[in-house]
Amino acid sequence: MEVHTFFLFLTAMLLTARLFAEMAVRLGAPSVIGELLAGVVLGPSLIGWISPSDVIKLLAEIGIILLLFEVGLETDVRQLAHAGVKALVVAVSGVVLPFAMGFSLARFGFRLDMLPSLFIGGTLTATSIGITVRVLADLKRQASHEAQIVLGAAVLDDIAGVVLLSLLHEFAVGGGVSLINAGKVLTFILVFFVLAPPMAKLLAVIIQRFDRTSEIPGLIPTTIVSLVLLFAWLAHQAGAPELLGGFAAGMALSRRFFLPFGLALHGDAENRFAHRVDEQMRPIIHLFTPIFFVMVGLALNLREVEWRSPFIWSFSLSLVLVAVIGKLIGALMIRESWHTRWAIGLAMIPRGEVGLIFAELGRISGIFDQELYAGMIIVIAMTTLFPPFIMKWLYGRYGDEMLKQQTE
Amino acid sequence: MEVHTFFLFLTAMLLTARLFAEMAVRLGAPSVIGELLAGVVLGPSLIGWISPSDVIKLLAEIGIILLLFEVGLETDVRQLAHAGVKALVVAVSGVVLPFAMGFSLARFGFRLDMLPSLFIGGTLTATSIGITVRVLADLKRQASHEAQIVLGAAVLDDIAGVVLLSLLHEFAVGGGVSLINAGKVLTFILVFFVLAPPMAKLLAVIIQRFDRTSEIPGLIPTTIVSLVLLFAWLAHQAGAPELLGGFAAGMALSRRFFLPFGLALHGDAENRFAHRVDEQMRPIIHLFTPIFFVMVGLALNLREVEWRSPFIWSFSLSLVLVAVIGKLIGALMIRESWHTRWAIGLAMIPRGEVGLIFAELGRISGIFDQELYAGMIIVIAMTTLFPPFIMKWLYGRYGDEMLKQQTE
Repeated sequence: MEVHTFFLFLTAMLLTARLFAEMAVRLGAPSVIGELLAGVVLGPSLIGWISPSDVIKLLAEIGIILLLFEVGLETDVRQLAHAGVKALVVAVSGVVLPFAMGFSLARFGFRLDMLPSLFIGGTLTATSIGITVRVLADLKRQASHEAQIVLGAAVLDDIAGVVLLSLLHEFAVGGGVSLINAGKVLTFILVFFVLAPPMAKLLAVIIQRFDRTSEIPGLIPTTIVSLVLLFAWLAHQAGAPELLGGFAAGMALSRRFFLPFGLALHGDAENRFAHRVDEQMRPIIHLFTPIFFVMVGLALNLREVEWRSPFIWSFSLSLVLVAVIGKLIGALMIRESWHTRWAIGLAMIPRGEVGLIFAELGRISGIFDQELYAGMIIVIAMTTLFPPFIMKWLYGRYGDEMLKQQTE
Repeated sequence: MEVHTFFLFLTAMLLTARLFAEMAVRLGAPSVIGELLAGVVLGPSLIGWISPSDVIKLLAEIGIILLLFEVGLETDVRQLAHAGVKALVVAVSGVVLPFAMGFSLARFGFRLDMLPSLFIGGTLTATSIGITVRVLADLKRQASHEAQIVLGAAVLDDIAGVVLLSLLHEFAVGGGVSLINAGKVLTFILVFFVLAPPMAKLLAVIIQRFDRTSEIPGLIPTTIVSLVLLFAWLAHQAGAPELLGGFAAGMALSRRFFLPFGLALHGDAENRFAHRVDEQMRPIIHLFTPIFFVMVGLALNLREVEWRSPFIWSFSLSLVLVAVIGKLIGALMIRESWHTRWAIGLAMIPRGEVGLIFAELGRISGIFDQELYAGMIIVIAMTTLFPPFIMKWLYGRYGDEMLKQQTE
């Protein structure tokens, strides 16, 4: 692809996303829906003008990383720790239940083979932290109590996702799970998660020190964007050979660095610095974030679906049911007001890009045939597109009440 | 090139530029020198790790376009018009004198052929608006009286440069200038320059209207960066087949749109909007601008130079003299205080990226052999690297005096 052509594509993506988002908001829908639809329209589902190339995927990755960085910047680490046990409950049940239910339904309900059934279960475990965070941010609830629980749970789910994905891939390639390989993968992930927070803290201190002494403007955007690029590169370098879903692993890992990075900046004594960072990074974040959601829309190729097949409908709709119930149960079990429980449960439902990575891996490795893949696309599309509407409605109707109950 | 690798290169460029710029400032040098040197170090001149690829060139172009947009945003159109006649004197003499003197020296002094002599003259006409504007901005004089004159003159020089470049290319390819082709080129440029300001004004009004009604944040960075990308694409589409130096033409043309665009926003009744735009675009501009200067450094391949050849030295040093005097004369003739005249003259000297485009075209078309090209690289490097130092010294010593004389 010519570089100039890519510029044109990027312009089209940015402007269409903006246009659709504005229309969505005017029609009372969440703006992220507009951005997803922009991707659906421009991508292979409809016009077929733009396909999700590597460069677009990487720009999208920068977008989601920056979004998580901003979330970290606005999140109080004590509050997040406070949400710890509840987040754990939501996360564990949100992985175990959809996996078990999805697997059982596929294996015993639809009598599929072992491997596709495992991949279907795996796909249902995904939580799209991007969609979830964005919807809460649009509702200006990203710093709320329930957002902390959702955030904590989504982070844990993301980690579980990387582990599960690499194990499933092992299983698919080798026919079984080698303890050595699985051990390697787990060690790598563990080391990364132990090292990320102190490294993030260190870098935050260094940047802050330089910011104080520098006489040239622009230190904050330059260093933070450089770090994002560097980590995207590092994670890909580390992730590509060892873990599979090199891209998925790289994405999950580099994401995992920028949340603590933001937290480290926020937690600092000089909160004025966090404010400066927020102020300077915000335009860049606003520029890159929509690219991520457009990319998810581009990747949702609805043309793959044979709409008249009755199997597709029974298969996907029953899986959607499982996907929704599996995520809701955990949230409905924790001790919160009922509105808050529903809000948390709904926020966990979107499978988004994480689900797409599972489904894509299933297809590439030949485990999903065209029909199963199409069914999974419907499941991902429905779980991704509907919850934002319901959440918006729920907050519009019960948002104040929720806040009151939490502060009581 | 792998996308991940490119991310690594970009990180290296951003961080090295920042590091060198910080060091330059601490040593009392202009920060732009640090960024140019970062390019020289990373590029083929020294380490040879990064070469100026198309993608880097386009990112650099976004950087320079955004810088010009910011300059437009801070420039008062009446003040610019006020500087008109003086700017014209500086521009015309700054094109005619270096061309005539450079051509004569090459043709009659060094007894070179017609074509290389013409290209040498052409290369000397260039004014690097980027370097000039950046140095003035670093000195916080970008809105000063002399900056208006320099800006006006540099804009006129840029236009003259595109025309001259396309005529020289015609001459090189066809052995003469076809009136039809030359007419086409001139018409195209004329139409563009007539249409650009009203289009810029229109777009400024549209963005402002949407900004007032939009409920989603991030309208300003998204639309302005989209416009930059779109214009880069449009200019390349239009420039590539007709004019030569497709890249050069595209660059000069898309640059020429964003200065009036910034002016249109500035000139608006609601200056608060211009302030909002400035505030939101600044981090993005700070992020992209250094890429441009690093790119100029990357393109300055000093390894091409055979340092022990006596011809190189006599050739390039005498041309440097001509290049400096040719630009100074016009500035020294206008009615300003002597310090202001010197400041303007010095600001016109850097040839930077525009000179490189001429030299590159000369080499590609076989008009410059290796030795002549190397000589021109020295001329461009010296005119680009030294004036910022002298300007910094001049402003440090006589800056206040200049200001006082102007307000009298």
